[in-house]
Amino acid sequence: MKTLSIICFFILSLTNNIIAQDKEKYPLGDYSELTDTKPHDSNIFWNKQAALPQLKWGSTDIRYSKLNIPVETKGSLWKAKAWKGERINAQAVLWSAKELKDVQISVSELTNGSDIIPTSSITTNFVRYVMTDELNKDKKGGCSHRPNKAEWDSSLVADPLDIVKIRDVQARSTQPIWVNIWVPQNTKTGKYKGTLSVSGTNFSPMKLKIEVEVLNHTLPSPEDWKFHLDLWQNPYAVARYYQVPLWSQKHFEAMRPIMKKLADAGQKVITATIMHKPWNGQTLDLFNSMVTKIKKIDGTWSYDYTVFDKWVDFMMNEIGINQQINCYTLIPWALQFDYYDQATNTIKYINAKPGDKHYSDYWGNFLTDFSRHLRQKGWFEKTTIAMDERALDAMQEALKIIKKADPEFKVSLAGNYHTEIESDLYDYCLAFGHNFPKDTKNSRSQKNKKSTVYTCCTEAIPNVFTFSPPAEATWLGWHVAAGNYDGYLRWAYNSWPEDPLRDSRFHTWAAGDCFLIYPGFRSSIRMERLIEGIQDCEKIWILQKKITNKKQLEKLNKIVSQFTPEGLTQKEVTQMVNEARKVLNSF
Amino acid sequence: MKTLSIICFFILSLTNNIIAQDKEKYPLGDYSELTDTKPHDSNIFWNKQAALPQLKWGSTDIRYSKLNIPVETKGSLWKAKAWKGERINAQAVLWSAKELKDVQISVSELTNGSDIIPTSSITTNFVRYVMTDELNKDKKGGCSHRPNKAEWDSSLVADPLDIVKIRDVQARSTQPIWVNIWVPQNTKTGKYKGTLSVSGTNFSPMKLKIEVEVLNHTLPSPEDWKFHLDLWQNPYAVARYYQVPLWSQKHFEAMRPIMKKLADAGQKVITATIMHKPWNGQTLDLFNSMVTKIKKIDGTWSYDYTVFDKWVDFMMNEIGINQQINCYTLIPWALQFDYYDQATNTIKYINAKPGDKHYSDYWGNFLTDFSRHLRQKGWFEKTTIAMDERALDAMQEALKIIKKADPEFKVSLAGNYHTEIESDLYDYCLAFGHNFPKDTKNSRSQKNKKSTVYTCCTEAIPNVFTFSPPAEATWLGWHVAAGNYDGYLRWAYNSWPEDPLRDSRFHTWAAGDCFLIYPGFRSSIRMERLIEGIQDCEKIWILQKKITNKKQLEKLNKIVSQFTPEGLTQKEVTQMVNEARKVLNSF
Repeated sequence: MKTLSIICFFILSLTNNIIAQDKEKYPLGDYSELTDTKPHDSNIFWNKQAALPQLKWGSTDIRYSKLNIPVETKGSLWKAKAWKGERINAQAVLWSAKELKDVQISVSELTNGSDIIPTSSITTNFVRYVMTDELNKDKKGGCSHRPNKAEWDSSLVADPLDIVKIRDVQARSTQPIWVNIWVPQNTKTGKYKGTLSVSGTNFSPMKLKIEVEVLNHTLPSPEDWKFHLDLWQNPYAVARYYQVPLWSQKHFEAMRPIMKKLADAGQKVITATIMHKPWNGQTLDLFNSMVTKIKKIDGTWSYDYTVFDKWVDFMMNEIGINQQINCYTLIPWALQFDYYDQATNTIKYINAKPGDKHYSDYWGNFLTDFSRHLRQKGWFEKTTIAMDERALDAMQEALKIIKKADPEFKVSLAGNYHTEIESDLYDYCLAFGHNFPKDTKNSRSQKNKKSTVYTCCTEAIPNVFTFSPPAEATWLGWHVAAGNYDGYLRWAYNSWPEDPLRDSRFHTWAAGDCFLIYPGFRSSIRMERLIEGIQDCEKIWILQKKITNKKQLEKLNKIVSQFTPEGLTQKEVTQMVNEARKVLNSF
Repeated sequence: MKTLSIICFFILSLTNNIIAQDKEKYPLGDYSELTDTKPHDSNIFWNKQAALPQLKWGSTDIRYSKLNIPVETKGSLWKAKAWKGERINAQAVLWSAKELKDVQISVSELTNGSDIIPTSSITTNFVRYVMTDELNKDKKGGCSHRPNKAEWDSSLVADPLDIVKIRDVQARSTQPIWVNIWVPQNTKTGKYKGTLSVSGTNFSPMKLKIEVEVLNHTLPSPEDWKFHLDLWQNPYAVARYYQVPLWSQKHFEAMRPIMKKLADAGQKVITATIMHKPWNGQTLDLFNSMVTKIKKIDGTWSYDYTVFDKWVDFMMNEIGINQQINCYTLIPWALQFDYYDQATNTIKYINAKPGDKHYSDYWGNFLTDFSRHLRQKGWFEKTTIAMDERALDAMQEALKIIKKADPEFKVSLAGNYHTEIESDLYDYCLAFGHNFPKDTKNSRSQKNKKSTVYTCCTEAIPNVFTFSPPAEATWLGWHVAAGNYDGYLRWAYNSWPEDPLRDSRFHTWAAGDCFLIYPGFRSSIRMERLIEGIQDCEKIWILQKKITNKKQLEKLNKIVSQFTPEGLTQKEVTQMVNEARKVLNSF
């Protein structure tokens, strides 16, 4: 009988698993976090706390530990300055020795006499915890392969901003609360006051005060920002995570809030792929070709742009990311080019390198037709043939083929600086630490060419790993201003690992390297702080034009000029950002 | 040192192998046969033979053993009767105790006074030896899986007719020689005489006499035969064996003599495939879809017929097989339907059965477009949607979908007899042993519908395995006449195993089941004897119309009526065929 029960139980478990999987393979709604296995404040220590839960303002620079009593909390008043049209962030912390049931957050409208900032401009989120790892063992960046997670020091860190609005807070734990205020552009200058309230079914409501001073400056809407933001989108990851057919209506619906958030961050570029695996499959969800390439049996080629057109059209006209289309790539990380082979009814691959006849045939034919199609759609002027981290000689061969197909094709590269091809590149994004010669940059700006900077796994500090201090994300925007760039590129907005909400680690690179936002759709501390930096850069550029007082301008430029990449510590970065932001808000 | 030599030898061998493979992966020109491991006449016995080589006429009913002194040879005169336009076969045997060098065959023209049958009408071939196996262990057919060749009694048998014209004949071996005379249609009635000569560099030339009596009857050209022959072609096997790109010019050039031979056998049907693996991959070289089916991201379908059109056009206009196009299939052996999925840039499969919505969508859409395309090409009237050995209920569901797409679509089935769907089938090929009711057959003939019979691995006797006695192939044509069928179908004209020239065995079915001809292009004893049977059937039908004398007609019909499938032995089949053919040539 015992054996039988065990078998029955086993069968039931199996059935439950299958049903659960059918319902939702990966969590989109509520979910449980992984276990925090790090040493933390003892029960005794927690129980010494007051019996009642506590709520204080904290710092947006801190990823508060889940099972420790929060350190570095502030009082019950958050005072902030903001431009009209700016988004500002705050973090509150709630902690309790006993479990809190059905916790909810609410905010009042912020008032200044009869003027208000409405509650619809204020977003609050419970901060959630995700598993992260660490820098490379030598602390010199995060670009290592990490097939064995056990070899890496892992811990639970605060990063995702949850969409679930009512939560239980477990006994002896800290629950951070993220607050974002997007000051309407038409708000009048002045001090606005309001409250943040936290309530639940087994404790008395608690309140914190908010005081926002709206300055007499206006930040334009994101679509009008000059900052050239290029975070690469991965539609394939969304289809997999949401378990929806690629390019179906459901897929686009799933992408809509994710891409809208990106548009709100000032994104200018649509990431498109014109071949299978442009980066040789470095992401969990491979980028595939958005163009159908058919080799017919007479050796001629036939192309279809249905997917490409639908994706670009969605991003341009429904999301509002409409300034540039970067098409990856003519020089992929593995020189293998896919096509549908009509003769054999299979997907085949050409192995060829720039300079080979097969390479020229494959790309020459395609680019000629692609140019025709883009011109017909009215997109030609916005499109670049995009390359990532390729060598000079390969770039030169590719440029020949592109220019032969259509001399007016724009080309982009993210990589090192090469004088030889600089003039051929419409959108040239330099690796962190590389600079454009000043004359070159001026000349590029006059021609309206984009000159930007990127970071990836290489940089230990500053970075946007899930374990990076939040201020490092803000630092990046200041670096754009300091380095005389036009904007910033990161290779992965949402190339999620298998289960990103619970585990941000991936089999290569430090955790969080391949995404800035979470499924759900959920934002992150990193993303919000990155937007702060972008806003700061935009504000700097506005002030640099607006300030007429020379001393004032020197003061601004001096503080900006400090944001250079020389050997900073994490602590220095956070301090720099805080001090600089104070100066920025003093104008 | 010894070890080193062995290693060197090994490396050299490897290198040679690689070079040989690069040159020609599978033999097309001359090649070596596998070793005959069966007991055979001893050296002593062979050496008792006359020192000089011997040449005699033999019988086309015998697969002469390679290493035995031939038994059942005839004299030095071959006397035969033939209709004008008929092909007749003879076999000579050459054997020798000593090796014969550079053996060549030549023939004189056949003369009758000043009338001639020119040498261009006479083909001679060295008969070659191929590895075969045997019937199932219970001797009831050959439909077994044979993954382990060692479990099956294997031997070398005479079958391929070589294209190599000068050969050495090894000491103590028999070399059969196949002779085919295609009497020109304009030949005058009368007796024609000539000689067959065999010469070499180390023996005196030898001669055999030929005497062909040309009767006062004319067999039409194969394209005008009424016999509805349907041997399924496998273009994919040709591309693989000849190592040429599918549907390339080289591929068509390789197929040309192979398919021309089929046209000369009176073939009426082009085998076309409209999906991947219609028979779930039963052949070594899988049939793929000759139609490009693209599922676009909006759920609509796009079709391209380039491959289909090129194949059909080649067969119709270059080869002359132009009466019917059978398109496999709506009900494959595994219910899995391929398409190119534009969203994911992959080949995908729909799993659905007749009656399912997915099935109707996939096929309904396609058939509607296919009908449009076929009508545009002027091929609609010649095309059938073809099914093989499917059950009644599945056929009925498929018929619904076909008729819905275009009520005028012709449909074919090779399978058992079902009254319920008989009237829906334009081309109905019954399994051996099944018969059409007489009224039904007459009614079908009046409507010009095709009513044929097929054999496959099921039949032990008669069959066309490489070990089947040659007369069994001829028997099949007589059976068509006896069973009141319109023709004959076999599922495999050239679905070659890996190395068919040397080894006719396959991992399923008795050896030779999946092909009748050899690469090179080379015909076979089986193919030539099958053509004899087809000619005989055609002759019977002509005589049945032509003979006015009632007794004569009864005599003919009586001998024909014996060709029914009841429990024949191999010996009986050969006797029946010989006796019946004598009668046939007596009119």
